[in-house]
Amino acid sequence: MAGETISFARGAPSADILPHEAVRDAAARALAGDWETALSYGVGIGHPGLCQWVAERHGGLDASQVMITNGSLEGGAMLFEHLLGPGDRVVVEQPTYDRTLLLLQRLGVELVPVPLEADGLGLAAFEVALAEGPIKLAHIIPNAHNPAGCTLSSAKRARLVELAAEHDFWIFEDDPYRELPFEGEPLETMLSLDATGHVIHASSFSKTVSPGVRVGYLAGPVEEIAKLSKRANETYISPNMLAESIVLELCNSGELDRNIDFVKGALKDRCDALVAALREQIPEAEFVVPEGGYFLWLDLAAGTDASALLAEAKGGGVTFVAGPDFMIDGGENSLRLSFAPVPAEQMSEGVSRIAAALERIRAASPA
Amino acid sequence: MAGETISFARGAPSADILPHEAVRDAAARALAGDWETALSYGVGIGHPGLCQWVAERHGGLDASQVMITNGSLEGGAMLFEHLLGPGDRVVVEQPTYDRTLLLLQRLGVELVPVPLEADGLGLAAFEVALAEGPIKLAHIIPNAHNPAGCTLSSAKRARLVELAAEHDFWIFEDDPYRELPFEGEPLETMLSLDATGHVIHASSFSKTVSPGVRVGYLAGPVEEIAKLSKRANETYISPNMLAESIVLELCNSGELDRNIDFVKGALKDRCDALVAALREQIPEAEFVVPEGGYFLWLDLAAGTDASALLAEAKGGGVTFVAGPDFMIDGGENSLRLSFAPVPAEQMSEGVSRIAAALERIRAASPA
Repeated sequence: MAGETISFARGAPSADILPHEAVRDAAARALAGDWETALSYGVGIGHPGLCQWVAERHGGLDASQVMITNGSLEGGAMLFEHLLGPGDRVVVEQPTYDRTLLLLQRLGVELVPVPLEADGLGLAAFEVALAEGPIKLAHIIPNAHNPAGCTLSSAKRARLVELAAEHDFWIFEDDPYRELPFEGEPLETMLSLDATGHVIHASSFSKTVSPGVRVGYLAGPVEEIAKLSKRANETYISPNMLAESIVLELCNSGELDRNIDFVKGALKDRCDALVAALREQIPEAEFVVPEGGYFLWLDLAAGTDASALLAEAKGGGVTFVAGPDFMIDGGENSLRLSFAPVPAEQMSEGVSRIAAALERIRAASPA
Repeated sequence: MAGETISFARGAPSADILPHEAVRDAAARALAGDWETALSYGVGIGHPGLCQWVAERHGGLDASQVMITNGSLEGGAMLFEHLLGPGDRVVVEQPTYDRTLLLLQRLGVELVPVPLEADGLGLAAFEVALAEGPIKLAHIIPNAHNPAGCTLSSAKRARLVELAAEHDFWIFEDDPYRELPFEGEPLETMLSLDATGHVIHASSFSKTVSPGVRVGYLAGPVEEIAKLSKRANETYISPNMLAESIVLELCNSGELDRNIDFVKGALKDRCDALVAALREQIPEAEFVVPEGGYFLWLDLAAGTDASALLAEAKGGGVTFVAGPDFMIDGGENSLRLSFAPVPAEQMSEGVSRIAAALERIRAASPA
C-alpha cells in the first residue's frame, strides 16, 4: 500500500479548508457582545437574530418562517416525524443521500423511487408515480446533489412546485449545497416559487462554516414552522445557542461570504482535478460533471461490482462509498467520490489507486 | 404593579451568574488548540475527550460508558424512544419535571405515579406499584429535585438499585443538579452502585456552565450506550462539537470547578433568602428546605387554588409555575418557586407579592 489512505468516502471538507481563525475571532466577538443570548436557554426556533438573517438571505422571508436546528439532518428528521406516518408514500430520488433513506425507513413509510437525470429528478417517472396514488412528500436535493452531483434545472423546479399545489404533496427541499456553485449564482429555490405553502426548505452552515458547529435551519409556511419549533422545544428546549451566536457573528461580519468564496475555489480545484484524472485514467467512467458541492457519482461498465472494487481499493490505499448504499435497489456498478476531503494535488494519485484496483478485480475474474 | 415582574418561573440562572468571561477565554483556547475536532463532524458519542473527562469525573467509568448529547433532555428523549414502547409501565415521581411527563406521554406508555417524600421516592408506594405488574423503567431525579427540592437518601438509592436488579427494570437517574449541593459532597450516584447494568445516568453542563451551551451526557452500560450513540449518529451525525470543545477546555482548566463554587454560593444565598421570606410572610407554606439546586416546592392550605393564585400574582408583578403542571393528578394547592433566576435582594419583595396575591384571592372568595 502506497502511503496513507486517500479517502473519497466522507462528505466533509479536509481540515485545511476549515476557517478556524475566523471562527475563533467570531467566538470572541459573540461572547463579548451577544453572551447573554449565547449562554441562556432559547426557545425552539433557536437564535432569533440568526432566524432573521436567514430570512433576509432568502430574499425577504418573514423571520417566523425560519427555525434554526442542530444541523439540517435533525431538522429533516423532525420534519419527517411531524409530517409522515406509516404507509405514507414518499418519493425519494435514486440515488439519494443514504442517511435520508435510513430516517425514512425507520418511520415505516412506503418509499417511491424516482430516478435522477442529468438535470435532476426524472419528471416523467415522477408523474407516473403520482398517477399510481397520492404522494405525501417528495424529498428533493436540488443543488450539487449528494451523491449524484447533478443540479435540478430551473424548469423542473417550477414544474415540481406546480405539481405540489395541484396534487397537494409536500416538497422537502433539502439544500445544503446551494451556496456552493462553482460559477455564477445559485438557481432560485423551490421555496421562493411556492405560493401555496407546499415547500419546506432545509439548509445548513456545515458546508459554509464547518460541520462541527451543527447549525442548520428549516424554512417554510409559518404554521408548520410554529408546530415544528414547538416539537423542537419539547425535545431539546432550544438548539445550540452558543454555536448559533458564533455563526451569526460570522454572517454579520462578512466572514461567511469570504469563506464561501474561498471554499468554492478550493472545491472547484478539487473537482476539476478529479474530473481530469478520471477522464485520463478511467475513461469508461460515465458521470455528470458537478457544477458545485462535494460529490461526483460515476457509473462503471455494466457488470462491474463496486462493492468488490471498494474492498480491493481499501487494500490499495483508497476508499469511497459504493453505489448500493444510496439506492433502494441497484447501484452495483456505481460509486460516489467525495472530492471535498481530498486536496487537488492528491487527486491523480487517488484515482490511479482506484484504476489499479479496478484492473486487479477484472484480472481476478475476467468477464 | 410595583416595578418589573419578578419571575420564579423558569429553571434557569439569572444572567449575572453566567460565566461569560470564562467561556470566552475557553473558546479562544479551544479554537487555538482543539479546532480540528471542534469544527469537524464527530460521531454519535460527541467529543471523545469530553467523554473521557466525564468518565473520570464519575470516579473511573470507562469512556465507552459515556456519550455526550445536545443537553440531557434530548438524551433522555432518545433513551425513552430506545427503551420504551406503547403500554410499558413507567414509574414517575409525583411531582416531577413537566417536560419528562410530556416526552413520556408522547410515547404512549402507562405512567405509574409514585409520591415523593422528604427524602425522595416513597419506597412503600413504589413496591406496591411493582407488585401490581412489571415496571419497565423508573424515572428518578435524585438530587435537589425539580420541582420538589428534595434529595434521595443514600439508603433509598441502595434499595432502588437492588430492586432494579431483582425485578429487572431500568432506572433512569436524571441528575442535572448533582454538582450543586449547598454543603458538602453529593451522595453517591445510583450508577456507581449498579453492578448489574440497570442504571442509565444523565447529567448536564447547563447548570454548571450555562444552558445555552446545550451540552449534556448519558452514562451507563457499554452496550446500551453503543446502541444509543448509533441512534444519535443516525439522527444528527454528531452533537455540537464546537460547544463540547469549549466545555472540555473549561473542565480541563479548572474553570468549571471555580464556577461551580461560585454558582453554589449564589444559589445558597438565594435559597436562604427565599426560605426566610416564606417563613416570615407566608407562614402557612409547607416545604422541604432544598439542600441544593434551583427549586422549592410549597404546599399552601388545602383548598387554595394555585392556578387562580398564579393569575392574580401575574397581575401583581410576580410569576411562578402552579403545581398541576408537574402532576398527573392533583397539585392544586402547590407551587414551584425557582430561586435560581431571582437575586437574593429581590427575594423578599417577590414573596411579598405572592403573599399579597394570596390575600386578594382569599378576600375575593372567602372559605
